[in-house]
Amino acid sequence: MFILKNIGIDSSHENTIYIREDSPISHSEGFKVLTRVSVHFNGRHIIATLNTVESDLLGEGEAGLSEYAMQRLQVHEGDIITIKHLQPLASLGYVRAKIYGKELGEEAFQAIIRDVVDGLYSNIELAAFVTACADDLNLNEIIYLTKAMIATGQRIHWSKDIVLDKHCVGGVPGNRTTPIVVSIVAAAGLIIPKTSSKAITSPAGTADMLETITTVDLSLEKMEEVVERENGCLAWGGAVRLSPADDLLIYIEKALDIDSEGQMVASVLSKKAAAGSTHVVIDIPYGKTAKVRSHEEALKLQYYFQAVGEAIGLKTDILLSDGSQPVGRGIGPALEALDVLRVLKNEPDAPADLRHNAVTIAGKLLETAGQCAPGEGAALADSYITSGQAYKKLVAICTAQGGFREPVTGKHTFAVTAGKDGTVQEIDNRKLARIAKLAGAPKSPGAGILFDAPLGRTVKKGDVLFTIYAETKGQLAYAREYADTVDHLIIIT
Amino acid sequence: MFILKNIGIDSSHENTIYIREDSPISHSEGFKVLTRVSVHFNGRHIIATLNTVESDLLGEGEAGLSEYAMQRLQVHEGDIITIKHLQPLASLGYVRAKIYGKELGEEAFQAIIRDVVDGLYSNIELAAFVTACADDLNLNEIIYLTKAMIATGQRIHWSKDIVLDKHCVGGVPGNRTTPIVVSIVAAAGLIIPKTSSKAITSPAGTADMLETITTVDLSLEKMEEVVERENGCLAWGGAVRLSPADDLLIYIEKALDIDSEGQMVASVLSKKAAAGSTHVVIDIPYGKTAKVRSHEEALKLQYYFQAVGEAIGLKTDILLSDGSQPVGRGIGPALEALDVLRVLKNEPDAPADLRHNAVTIAGKLLETAGQCAPGEGAALADSYITSGQAYKKLVAICTAQGGFREPVTGKHTFAVTAGKDGTVQEIDNRKLARIAKLAGAPKSPGAGILFDAPLGRTVKKGDVLFTIYAETKGQLAYAREYADTVDHLIIIT
Repeated sequence: MFILKNIGIDSSHENTIYIREDSPISHSEGFKVLTRVSVHFNGRHIIATLNTVESDLLGEGEAGLSEYAMQRLQVHEGDIITIKHLQPLASLGYVRAKIYGKELGEEAFQAIIRDVVDGLYSNIELAAFVTACADDLNLNEIIYLTKAMIATGQRIHWSKDIVLDKHCVGGVPGNRTTPIVVSIVAAAGLIIPKTSSKAITSPAGTADMLETITTVDLSLEKMEEVVERENGCLAWGGAVRLSPADDLLIYIEKALDIDSEGQMVASVLSKKAAAGSTHVVIDIPYGKTAKVRSHEEALKLQYYFQAVGEAIGLKTDILLSDGSQPVGRGIGPALEALDVLRVLKNEPDAPADLRHNAVTIAGKLLETAGQCAPGEGAALADSYITSGQAYKKLVAICTAQGGFREPVTGKHTFAVTAGKDGTVQEIDNRKLARIAKLAGAPKSPGAGILFDAPLGRTVKKGDVLFTIYAETKGQLAYAREYADTVDHLIIIT
Repeated sequence: MFILKNIGIDSSHENTIYIREDSPISHSEGFKVLTRVSVHFNGRHIIATLNTVESDLLGEGEAGLSEYAMQRLQVHEGDIITIKHLQPLASLGYVRAKIYGKELGEEAFQAIIRDVVDGLYSNIELAAFVTACADDLNLNEIIYLTKAMIATGQRIHWSKDIVLDKHCVGGVPGNRTTPIVVSIVAAAGLIIPKTSSKAITSPAGTADMLETITTVDLSLEKMEEVVERENGCLAWGGAVRLSPADDLLIYIEKALDIDSEGQMVASVLSKKAAAGSTHVVIDIPYGKTAKVRSHEEALKLQYYFQAVGEAIGLKTDILLSDGSQPVGRGIGPALEALDVLRVLKNEPDAPADLRHNAVTIAGKLLETAGQCAPGEGAALADSYITSGQAYKKLVAICTAQGGFREPVTGKHTFAVTAGKDGTVQEIDNRKLARIAKLAGAPKSPGAGILFDAPLGRTVKKGDVLFTIYAETKGQLAYAREYADTVDHLIIIT
């Protein structure tokens, strides 16, 4: 038994418990550093990694927990906690089987995902699971993983026959269609309770972008209230915990800078199903430096999405689109938000490509919902922008979520210019994204890139190709350093 | 710039840096929790994971490092350290390629292993590398990994033409031949600078066992001095850092409870080569519940060992042996040491199987070194035990290493008895090993099992099958609980 002391250490998602190195229990019970132990309070327990402390940070009989662990166990300073040896986790046997390339069954995925959600896995164990699944899930396994994710999260039930949703596979900087699509579809009177993710490996996820104009961490109740009032919402999926397992897996994928096929399909569709959607349009942009690199790869993803969608009872339409260059001008949360607002406000300099992509997706949704004949959706969708109804809907949704505000860009900027005259021939999306990330995106919402050099543009030496935005001088310097030294970023011939 | 405060937190192998949550640098430079940063002092630097602290553990302008990080950076309280953004680690690109099943070249393994040894990988990144390699290294990759491990560690040069070594693949509880083999071979006047590992997934590694009778964490200089004097030594490989990369990889494998083929071959042979060996005998016991489960698997390992050995210029002889049941009576560090001492002392109740295995290996080494004709080695080896020369040599080596002491077993014991009359038909090595581990082995050196039920023994209901030893009551109860409930541990018919 230990008295809990709040030592205020934030070690993010991993539960850590700190006890004194000379603690009698550490000797009598044989606890050693990095042992995984179970920590009990009031009938609840968590699994935590043991760290020992030699300083006077802790007094005799005291123990500390990392902040995440305190929240998970729901304890406060002064509470009496107990530590026990950990029963071996049965589901890790399945993880080991997967490490050795075995195919896992439904029961295995259910067991693993349940333990992950219960916080029983260490970061090392999570990393092993994510890695073992990265290149090696077949269709059945993706279906099992998807079902296990749905089973361990919340699930929303709407009293409507048609509940729409959309998803873009991403990898194309600035392709921020979601707020436009949701505004159009909701303005058309259809239900679209949209949840979005934060960035995994990109400079901005849709939720990161939305956070610069409104509040996105809505509770499930709040989300239902917003949809009830405005037909649609723009929420962060992580906050409603529709797929809590996915949030933890994404955290590991982020740390490893990987984003694998099977886990992506499971992640996307589990969230759609949990959100109560019935019809979903998935946009797969492909191009040499997009996330999906070839038409063949795009077709494979299309197959997975449709087969898994069918297995879980979700009607899934796929759009394959052009991913050869950035969409809009901004890359990074606030800069992308500015593009979205320009489109919805019908401004003359609004990016035409972003508008085109958004009305294509919105049009497909309007067709699926029977609002117009096949082939007429895009024009109908576009009319909601022209009429101003879509912009009005965006502001209304943001207001219902907690308020609408203008995005703020970073105050430190640097313009990268053309080294010679010529025509823009090729653009490396991945390198552009890296610059935006080095500048601080998405953690710093004002950081990113304002892009001025689309494919085919004729430039003169000294013309601005793009401008880097950062919130701090240090980050600006860091991004500049990379931009100055990297090859084949924008090819001019 | 921060003033370093010694906060005395031991987080084992991972470098962690703690700064105040309200530290100005954390805002101006955009550092967030779990960011990987580089920490600089006096021209040296390490990579560390950032944790923030909200309590008064740290004053303004102060930062803390975990103990491992303080050692790696060679800093003390009061030193002025600086924190910088981390340049992206190029070698992680190779790790990602491996995650997606690509074959890696020599350069990739060199780059990864160099960064691992330099402490640049987080636990999540290490876990991803270990997992990605677990089931997926071809022969070339194993050779590259082995060479990279040799290149990043120390290497000993002996002025002898023949330097012997032995290794047992393990997985058979109690099969502690090393101290016997080394004693015989050194007594015969041959050079055998043996380094051993601590347990990865077993209840005792040879180094764990040796630690109960002498000092095993020898420096390289001390090891050379012992071999100079006594022809052989019994050192812990981790202390001499012959393959520092391997120590870190093994730490992750241990956490995941996996021990994969390619990494095992690289681990074993890199250490033999680094230790300056020229001829090595590798014992591969196989059996249904041993680490190597079938003759086929044993042959595959034999192929890998010989091919990699040849590639790095090491003469490698393989022995395939019986791994169907525990060897000797003890399982666990001190209990296994007692078996070894009984054999070397020629005691009447000494385990005959252990003696037989040891003289087989020692005999093969004597033959390889040209001490006798092929086929005569085992008898010659055995004569060194009978004459007492081998025991004398063991004590001399231990004395040279820092002193010889008798092993001490745990004082809490519990006897598991037969539930019915019959004959012992089958033994599950893995489950026996698990009981010994639950009792505290290898961390608690006196913990483990004393085994009384070899295959074929006739037992009566109530006869003792084995006795569990533990150093604490809690661990004894934990091991008993598992032994009481597990099925198919020892099958009596």
